[in-house]
Amino acid sequence: MTDPVPDTILDAATPALILDRQRLQENADRMRGRVAQLGVMLRPHVKTSKSIDVLRMLSGGADVPITVSTLAEARYFFGQGVRDILYAVGIAPVKLPQVAELIRAGCTLRIILDSIEAADAVQAYGSAEELRIEALVEVDTDGKRAGVDPNDELLIEIARRLSSGPGAGLAGVMTHAGGSYSARTLGEFEAIAERERAGAVTAANRLRSAGFPVAIVSVGSTPTVHYARALDGVTEARVGVYAFGDLVQAELGTCAIDDIAISVLASVIGHSPTHGRVLVDAGFLALSRDRGTADFAVDWGYGAVCDANGEVIPNVRVENSNQEHGIITAVSGELDLSRFPIGARVRILPNHACATAAAYDRYLVTDGSQQVVDVWERVNGW
Amino acid sequence: MTDPVPDTILDAATPALILDRQRLQENADRMRGRVAQLGVMLRPHVKTSKSIDVLRMLSGGADVPITVSTLAEARYFFGQGVRDILYAVGIAPVKLPQVAELIRAGCTLRIILDSIEAADAVQAYGSAEELRIEALVEVDTDGKRAGVDPNDELLIEIARRLSSGPGAGLAGVMTHAGGSYSARTLGEFEAIAERERAGAVTAANRLRSAGFPVAIVSVGSTPTVHYARALDGVTEARVGVYAFGDLVQAELGTCAIDDIAISVLASVIGHSPTHGRVLVDAGFLALSRDRGTADFAVDWGYGAVCDANGEVIPNVRVENSNQEHGIITAVSGELDLSRFPIGARVRILPNHACATAAAYDRYLVTDGSQQVVDVWERVNGW
Repeated sequence: MTDPVPDTILDAATPALILDRQRLQENADRMRGRVAQLGVMLRPHVKTSKSIDVLRMLSGGADVPITVSTLAEARYFFGQGVRDILYAVGIAPVKLPQVAELIRAGCTLRIILDSIEAADAVQAYGSAEELRIEALVEVDTDGKRAGVDPNDELLIEIARRLSSGPGAGLAGVMTHAGGSYSARTLGEFEAIAERERAGAVTAANRLRSAGFPVAIVSVGSTPTVHYARALDGVTEARVGVYAFGDLVQAELGTCAIDDIAISVLASVIGHSPTHGRVLVDAGFLALSRDRGTADFAVDWGYGAVCDANGEVIPNVRVENSNQEHGIITAVSGELDLSRFPIGARVRILPNHACATAAAYDRYLVTDGSQQVVDVWERVNGW
Repeated sequence: MTDPVPDTILDAATPALILDRQRLQENADRMRGRVAQLGVMLRPHVKTSKSIDVLRMLSGGADVPITVSTLAEARYFFGQGVRDILYAVGIAPVKLPQVAELIRAGCTLRIILDSIEAADAVQAYGSAEELRIEALVEVDTDGKRAGVDPNDELLIEIARRLSSGPGAGLAGVMTHAGGSYSARTLGEFEAIAERERAGAVTAANRLRSAGFPVAIVSVGSTPTVHYARALDGVTEARVGVYAFGDLVQAELGTCAIDDIAISVLASVIGHSPTHGRVLVDAGFLALSRDRGTADFAVDWGYGAVCDANGEVIPNVRVENSNQEHGIITAVSGELDLSRFPIGARVRILPNHACATAAAYDRYLVTDGSQQVVDVWERVNGW
């Protein structure tokens, strides 16, 4: 974007992504307190914000290790001085040259995998390149995505392959209980957090018993770290979306709606008294197609609607979206169109902060008022 | 992206967006023939491709007028030499300075609106800036999104406001029957196409009877232009997604699956024999969250799966997605995991081409083989 920096959000072309720095600060402080209480290290997942400025707030200014979801993030954050990076998507062999380039440049970049084929590919590539590539074995603790069963012999065999030559090395184990997003009661959240912890620790201990050193035992999702009663045996927590919060997180109880730190600024471009709806210039490219609250008690459609100050307008949501149009309606009853004059600005809270923020290459930063106090860049793509 | 241009798609880091130039050419030729047969002018909607190289194929190398969905597109295409641009999202007053800048630079940029408030805002702004801003009145022909009822007195009043001073002018009427996406039978498609045509022509004729000249009568969506039996009284057709086609369009019958010109290249990163699934490194950021085929006879999940040559693998789809993970399963029965070795490349056909392409800033162009013959840039953002 070549837009100049606006003085206030009312000067910004719409749609635009607003970041409330005060809320971010509070979310960051809360999570730092939480992981300290649990006795583990924080390894923020930067896939949510993809911004060095956001990371500095999450870390309280300290050097922290990070988790990334793309090698574009790894290159960007390494370029910004971050040294300890976990690339937490199962490695594709075609990406090993990019991994090697970062390691050679001095980055402590670790990868993850969950198969003999991948372990052998890493070992072969590292040996050929005279490079040691450290990997964590991904462990499955909820059956939702990737990973080896912590009790499967495959776990030991993968460790053996990683340790069988100079090209690779076993750095630890990691798991992600994405199933935590399906939990609804405190009991369910606590149970899945404990299963995540126990699965990772079981895997680590089985590897240790088999003679492999396991330095890193990494778990995490915002819901499991929020609800975990203990993380004994775990060394680090990976959490991402807590930085911004979103409507899904609010429904999961890990934040309040008033904690949500990002919103999409949009302009009112039309009215339909007949259909009781208002059109804004933020459609699914600006909001994302994410319908994450569809299965929750409150279905926010494509987002909850706030006024230009960020105050939630009750009973109003973005019911539908086209590419560059958002259709605002009342959740129930009639929409008061007089609240939405043509040209007025609204701010839309996202279902899923990671998906929504990905549409933008910068944040307009505020301190809660309409004043734009800074502009922070994001790194997108792969 | 700073990636070098790969020789073949197998050298490309994944995920990446592949464009089959032969299929694009065929789609382009078919639509040019279609609108010639209907006797209207083609005004391609570039929101799908956002690429000057794609536009050159759509236009057959000629100068064509275009439709845009963002002012970023307008600036980019104007910079590439396109002179006649319709910005087809109801104008937000905050964007008028950007509109003025393009008009002053020599762009024939027209905007759309459907309210007295917007018409007055444009008239006031244009008068203050000593600039004439031409607008089309948006007409509602299916009750799905924006526009004035063609028989409403409001239509005449908006024209009057646009014509009441030197700052604005009435250029015509436009409508978009997005409701065509809900049609399923030939009869329904033909009926909604005729309603789109008739509504626009009714509005134009009412304005003419009231003494206003109406040069442009603009209609369009890929389904309505594909199925229209006639477009009498219409001057131009706006169509976008036909350029690439997608799984929704295939379900709507406007293209075949083998006409789909874009696909997301992904690498296999994991297997789960227990769950009968394969993981790839294309998640919802690479595929989009669009679930457009959910309501059709065939629900393709997050996309249909092809081999590296672009041949559809029967009975296989991306059932679920996380940010950077796609989960491939069999539509019915068991998935043959042996077709998906770790590191193998697959190509995923999108539900909605516009949504999927928006995640990328370039296309890897092929001529149907795995050879990369060119790289074409896209313009994203606002």
